[in-house]
Amino acid sequence: MSLVRVHNLAVSLDGFATGVDQSLESPFGHAGMRLMQWFHDTATFRRNMGEDPGEPTPDDAFAARWDQGVGAEIMGAGKFGPPGWEDDASWQGWWGEEPPFHSPVVVLTHRPRPALTLGGTTFHFLDTLPRDALEAARTMADGLDVRVGGGPTTVRAFLAADLVDLLHVAVVPVVLGRGTSPWTGLDGIEDRFVSESVTTPSGVTHVTFTRRPRD
Amino acid sequence: MSLVRVHNLAVSLDGFATGVDQSLESPFGHAGMRLMQWFHDTATFRRNMGEDPGEPTPDDAFAARWDQGVGAEIMGAGKFGPPGWEDDASWQGWWGEEPPFHSPVVVLTHRPRPALTLGGTTFHFLDTLPRDALEAARTMADGLDVRVGGGPTTVRAFLAADLVDLLHVAVVPVVLGRGTSPWTGLDGIEDRFVSESVTTPSGVTHVTFTRRPRD
Repeated sequence: MSLVRVHNLAVSLDGFATGVDQSLESPFGHAGMRLMQWFHDTATFRRNMGEDPGEPTPDDAFAARWDQGVGAEIMGAGKFGPPGWEDDASWQGWWGEEPPFHSPVVVLTHRPRPALTLGGTTFHFLDTLPRDALEAARTMADGLDVRVGGGPTTVRAFLAADLVDLLHVAVVPVVLGRGTSPWTGLDGIEDRFVSESVTTPSGVTHVTFTRRPRD
Repeated sequence: MSLVRVHNLAVSLDGFATGVDQSLESPFGHAGMRLMQWFHDTATFRRNMGEDPGEPTPDDAFAARWDQGVGAEIMGAGKFGPPGWEDDASWQGWWGEEPPFHSPVVVLTHRPRPALTLGGTTFHFLDTLPRDALEAARTMADGLDVRVGGGPTTVRAFLAADLVDLLHVAVVPVVLGRGTSPWTGLDGIEDRFVSESVTTPSGVTHVTFTRRPRD
């Protein structure tokens, strides 16, 4: 069975994976680059952006796993665009003509629109529940794994439904004060997983949760 | 100048340093031992409890710093006893006849009572603000450092007042879902500090925040 994986979910010390006040001009809201700077410094991200990737780092060893063996992504509406994108028929996502996914992507939205192909990525807009979205994505992934790409509300929904096999969290030593937590309502979820932690020179702690075998 | 230090502040992935529903029978509330198991396993704690300390571990290297060079502690009312202890004139704290502090301790409470000496520890009950409590504790500490011993509301008040020089946080890979956060209202506080992180075999990440020089 293909796995359901979450990668590079950056979380602040106070447990928030996004800030508030996201907009077209400020996609990360009041968090700015604080949660994602470590990721933007990795060879994986820089290569995707067409920049000199530089030297691989311990952070990159984690970052690079995001698309290895992945055949489809599922993302929430909040990742595809800024608040209100559903009202703009011309909005095509943040990523330009060649989005970095290079696979089918299921976008969960209450306002579906026709599928959109940009480069090697096709976005499918579905108004459905996590389990059904996963079934659709698994079909698209053709035997490979499915990545749940965020944001935190979407990750939380998949965790709450116990659909996640591998969860990679990057704890960043910053305090956001407010934002969206992927953990709300998930008291004790660690019992379902085996966790391992390692800190890198950037100060980020990578925590991987691997689902214990299901009965 | 003596320093103001916080040690062994255990925080969940969702940013809570205590759970809910604390009581006499359940001092850690719904969190149980999840946040503090790593600490209870250290030689430092076991020695204080009169148990065989066992082998020192990386966690113990952090735990052991809690009383080195410390001449007084400040704690919040919520650390001294379970909800309602102020109504019980016979309550003498959780720690029996020989509390582990072995120093003066300022207990911040809106209902002061006479000072209480148990073994090498004297508790002074003060109804005052962080800055004034610190002044009192510094006098008691006789040139040594002052520890802010928690709980999270008290740590937050001292951080908000910019009175903390060293903050040691232990990030524990568990999710509490609800509780009290030491971070509320402290967006961006990391800018005041230099932080370092290290993970130990227990899976805990020790993050130390050292105050940058004040102008």
